[in-house]
Amino acid sequence: MKAEIMGIGTELLMGELNDTNAGWIATRLPPLGITLQWVTLVGDDLGQLTHAFQQGLKRSDIIFTTGGLGPTQDDLTREAVAATLGETPTVQEDMVEELRQYFRNRGQDMPSHNTKQAWLIPSAKFIPNRNGTAPGWWAERDGKHIIIMPGPPVEMQAIFREQVEPGLRELVTEEVTITRNVKTMGLGEAAVDEIMSEYFGHENPYLGIYSKADGIHLRVIARAADEATARRMIVPVEQAVHDRLGEYVWGYDDETPEQAVAQVLQSRGKTLAAMEYCTGGFLTNAITDVNEAQRHFRGSIVAFGAESLAAAGVPPALMDNHGAVSQETANAMASAALVQLDADYGIGVTGAPGPGELDGRPMGLCYLAIARATNAGPQVIKELELRVPPRRITIKRRISNQALIELRKLVEAGE
Amino acid sequence: MKAEIMGIGTELLMGELNDTNAGWIATRLPPLGITLQWVTLVGDDLGQLTHAFQQGLKRSDIIFTTGGLGPTQDDLTREAVAATLGETPTVQEDMVEELRQYFRNRGQDMPSHNTKQAWLIPSAKFIPNRNGTAPGWWAERDGKHIIIMPGPPVEMQAIFREQVEPGLRELVTEEVTITRNVKTMGLGEAAVDEIMSEYFGHENPYLGIYSKADGIHLRVIARAADEATARRMIVPVEQAVHDRLGEYVWGYDDETPEQAVAQVLQSRGKTLAAMEYCTGGFLTNAITDVNEAQRHFRGSIVAFGAESLAAAGVPPALMDNHGAVSQETANAMASAALVQLDADYGIGVTGAPGPGELDGRPMGLCYLAIARATNAGPQVIKELELRVPPRRITIKRRISNQALIELRKLVEAGE
Repeated sequence: MKAEIMGIGTELLMGELNDTNAGWIATRLPPLGITLQWVTLVGDDLGQLTHAFQQGLKRSDIIFTTGGLGPTQDDLTREAVAATLGETPTVQEDMVEELRQYFRNRGQDMPSHNTKQAWLIPSAKFIPNRNGTAPGWWAERDGKHIIIMPGPPVEMQAIFREQVEPGLRELVTEEVTITRNVKTMGLGEAAVDEIMSEYFGHENPYLGIYSKADGIHLRVIARAADEATARRMIVPVEQAVHDRLGEYVWGYDDETPEQAVAQVLQSRGKTLAAMEYCTGGFLTNAITDVNEAQRHFRGSIVAFGAESLAAAGVPPALMDNHGAVSQETANAMASAALVQLDADYGIGVTGAPGPGELDGRPMGLCYLAIARATNAGPQVIKELELRVPPRRITIKRRISNQALIELRKLVEAGE
Repeated sequence: MKAEIMGIGTELLMGELNDTNAGWIATRLPPLGITLQWVTLVGDDLGQLTHAFQQGLKRSDIIFTTGGLGPTQDDLTREAVAATLGETPTVQEDMVEELRQYFRNRGQDMPSHNTKQAWLIPSAKFIPNRNGTAPGWWAERDGKHIIIMPGPPVEMQAIFREQVEPGLRELVTEEVTITRNVKTMGLGEAAVDEIMSEYFGHENPYLGIYSKADGIHLRVIARAADEATARRMIVPVEQAVHDRLGEYVWGYDDETPEQAVAQVLQSRGKTLAAMEYCTGGFLTNAITDVNEAQRHFRGSIVAFGAESLAAAGVPPALMDNHGAVSQETANAMASAALVQLDADYGIGVTGAPGPGELDGRPMGLCYLAIARATNAGPQVIKELELRVPPRRITIKRRISNQALIELRKLVEAGE
């Protein structure tokens, strides 16, 4: 079945766009055998919306929309579906009561505007929304489906996973697409491209290459009548990636560096602490994005400047001799973090936060250290000098990712 | 002039989407008098791309594209433009030399694949890219413009700001659109909607309302023949927002809570330190996203668990009495952060990191404290109990934003 996604909201066209919804839905469709052909962003304009729905019904079997289901006068998605199908919405008293209850649970009265969220047309069924006040609609007419969902990703994703996906599975009986993403770090995109060169340009299985902040990804996509066949088609290509790039592979599919670290530390019952300078909390925030991070993470110190580093346990004399941006300081940071927060491993990252250089060290030059606890005190097991483009977000992302990927490698190797 | 944006890359349709480019470009177009009418995502398929370019040339005056300019066999944007315009690309030796130099500067040889990035067609000029190896093209034919740019946001944004925008300004002489975004926190979307109700539904100036992680935004958009007139049209609506919602307003336009805090602290020569639990480094990472954060930020301690909180200076007896998730603990965290990192203000945030409750406190229940340094030691000047939906990213975002907005209010009030 052919599908399209419409992201709805004038803010998307006026530059408030943060539309992660289309990308997220896109990941869920291939395993269902649904082919995404178009993604369009449309403003909150009844004429344009209705036009987009009419066009969509001509070229697609399923239209997914996100956004425009709020209680305000801007939100016109329901009106546009009703206009497209030539139906009139009526207020559903059951849903009004549910909305009132939603507000009562929060100690509030329901504003009158919210009544609009209880509208329904005859061709549609509600898709309940347990995380917000805007239920979705699943409308069906002449074998075509219009599935409208709220815009906030948390609400949309729960609705999609719990209600839309099961419904789609019953609907669709066509080809299945399986994807396998292999993540590498340590070689550039062009080098990986040359090494894997003979595997590109094939239709099925297809191999794609993508440059990301956590390295170069190789994505194998196979299409077949059933899942087992598609999975078998992926095997030889994935094997070739391993044969040629094995030492650079650190993760699979949606796995993040922080998840890879959580997995290896938790499975060995080990804990981690960190001290950051130039990454400014990015590393720590990534580590705590993992569910149950408290099982392997003790905490971090983000020291922003030499004085704070000294307060956090880096000897001032050492910084006087080598500079706050030096391998020696990174080593001391990794060791101090581990000792102060009583962890098995410590990460230390230092570099000029920018703009400009610090003590003669340019922005983008960073030092990374990993230490482990031993009976004789902390021992540095990895030292690394890294150079990345001197942009704050690039430094934060790349250095944090590399620190985590290096740690995972060491722990996995039994260091 | 009418414009459309094409985000190019099979990964966008297969679910690797992280397309922030369209949204970013969208924000830059209104002040140039360019109306964005369509955003489409297209895969790396020569047929589909060529079709999309042909359609775009019919309905738009300018087509912006991002992505598909890499050195690999997947990247087909150049080929599609050439095919659409019926022209043949040739290798430009000057550009080959620039690319070689780019690699030499990094101590590398240019891989042969990269030669493709030196292709050019007769209708196009290069748009140099100082942050990467993929130059853009600006093609012109019969008064229509195709502007192709690389996908990485850092590269695209620099190219757009430094080269595309000046070129567009010469091109366009039509209506100007001016936008003013007023950010509030403290009231829900429906409440703000009711308060401002009579200002919605007008064409020009237009008022939009958007619910974001940093509160409810009110966006005024005015169109006029010149900038001064458009700015004058915005004034009465913005004034009405202030008259009715003034106490909830904390920022404007693209200002973030962390920028608002940086501005107020730096202008008063004050510094900040923090101690985080449930926000897990998100707050600190936000604070250090601001340029020159070292001027007002000393550092943070992210303590993940009662033991780490104790190691960071929160008295264990206090946590035994009140729990690690309590107002008392938040107060002690704010005070300890301020003292240990020698700052003027300290923020403390505690809450169960989840999943599930901690010591009987549910996930989503958080305590916030702000302390300031006095001659008699740290003094707590704000205590706040907050409840947000029990999702990790929601807790991180909302609580961090609220902490910063509360701090800004206090410092601005001279506390």
